[in-house]
Amino acid sequence: MTMERSFGDRLVQAMDHQGPLCLGIDPHPQLLSAWGLNDDTAGLETFSKTVVEAAAGTTGVAALKPQVALYERFGSAGYAVLESTLQLARDAGILTIADAKRGDIGSTMAGYAAAWLTSESPLAADAVTLSAYLGYESLRPSIDLALANNRGVFVLALTSNPEGASVQHLGSSGDSVAKRIVDAAGKDNQNAHRLGSIGLVVGATVTAAAKALNIDLVRANAPILAPGYGSQGAQAADIRAGFGEAWPNVLVNSSRGILKYGPNVSDLQVAISSAHEELVVK
Amino acid sequence: MTMERSFGDRLVQAMDHQGPLCLGIDPHPQLLSAWGLNDDTAGLETFSKTVVEAAAGTTGVAALKPQVALYERFGSAGYAVLESTLQLARDAGILTIADAKRGDIGSTMAGYAAAWLTSESPLAADAVTLSAYLGYESLRPSIDLALANNRGVFVLALTSNPEGASVQHLGSSGDSVAKRIVDAAGKDNQNAHRLGSIGLVVGATVTAAAKALNIDLVRANAPILAPGYGSQGAQAADIRAGFGEAWPNVLVNSSRGILKYGPNVSDLQVAISSAHEELVVK
Repeated sequence: MTMERSFGDRLVQAMDHQGPLCLGIDPHPQLLSAWGLNDDTAGLETFSKTVVEAAAGTTGVAALKPQVALYERFGSAGYAVLESTLQLARDAGILTIADAKRGDIGSTMAGYAAAWLTSESPLAADAVTLSAYLGYESLRPSIDLALANNRGVFVLALTSNPEGASVQHLGSSGDSVAKRIVDAAGKDNQNAHRLGSIGLVVGATVTAAAKALNIDLVRANAPILAPGYGSQGAQAADIRAGFGEAWPNVLVNSSRGILKYGPNVSDLQVAISSAHEELVVK
Repeated sequence: MTMERSFGDRLVQAMDHQGPLCLGIDPHPQLLSAWGLNDDTAGLETFSKTVVEAAAGTTGVAALKPQVALYERFGSAGYAVLESTLQLARDAGILTIADAKRGDIGSTMAGYAAAWLTSESPLAADAVTLSAYLGYESLRPSIDLALANNRGVFVLALTSNPEGASVQHLGSSGDSVAKRIVDAAGKDNQNAHRLGSIGLVVGATVTAAAKALNIDLVRANAPILAPGYGSQGAQAADIRAGFGEAWPNVLVNSSRGILKYGPNVSDLQVAISSAHEELVVK
């Protein structure tokens, strides 16, 4: 399907209607087991379908974020399930973010871009997460293709895992690895109408570190995908306070915090509604 | 297949017998076209089979390195071709390095590890490339699984693309991002017999930068995957001189520099032999 409006615009619309919740589809072996499913592609498919069905049937999910690693562990058969999951989400009119954290250079990066960001690909998503150990500009083929195809990317910037600082904080506080990524995304978003299509991944619990590194998230004009809500410990009020003026740009991810209420669709929907209410309260 | 000896030991043996050449399997659209193949999964399969056949039928290839992005762009059908390509290489007794540059945290990283580093997976390779924007320690589930399964990883350290320095050189010269990665790999390799199983990716043309950053590649005791030979401009003599005492640990990658001589198997083998002779000359 060819998109007529930018990813940033489409995400703003989805967040206006559904609120700021992104629901992760994370078929971890432990979750499959907790849902009474086998850790195989049949279990993977039932799990994925159930999550999409729950999201489609209630208010509160602005985007679905399948965790690619958990499909890749089943090889091509797992990817076939991922393809059908993305199709189900498209059919339901829900934005998709493929959490793949891809990163390479040149024509190889273009290969990843073709996989995740073109209508012709069976893996087409509205956006894909990227990782820039090779430098932000190495991601250019994906950024260009995303913008050309009205799709988006979310580039890892500042993450909440304890080991992240060993790379992301290096450099001076005015010129750290993480700040360079945020500033570069800001440049790519500077002509966007309300919100750009080049997003950032910033942990919900590391907004203090962002300030210490002089990172200006508001100025980046970027959708901010923020993992860490729910099972990872951050409360909605803390996340809102932490992001401050950047809060309207934040897409808050919850995976296990909601998925643990499955496999019953209505139980999942209660959990979605509960998270939604917590996040939209002003 | 369960491996009985460490990846480092198996790589040393392969390099002792075959020399230091790693042959990339890079089915770029332009190469498929140059070989008279369609840019589809049938073309992908013919291309991949031809490269494995060429490598299997001559001396000079220590490892094959399929570029995962170029299979992923065809979704699950591309992955099925990658699976059969890895199987062909296994059948031919050639080591495989899946060039996937994966990186994530916790149980998600464990998902990638399961995909590429377990015998039960259809994508099982002898080693996989990893990317550590989330910190070296975030890769721990893959490192542990690689060591437990006698497989290996190659972690991006210092790359030759112009944008790489914007992340990898940050920090002080004694404590840069790249140096941290190399030193951390060195710790994981310290008890290895001759060569560890935790490899590094270091561009063939950036050995001067490694010295400027006080990076000690010899001490890391790591297999070093070095792209940049052939089509990317580095000459064999320069690479040997640049790596100095670390040269015995270097696996030199060539992709398009050899693949451009296809699609004829014997032409590819002449190119392999030529690169082999250039690289093994003392």
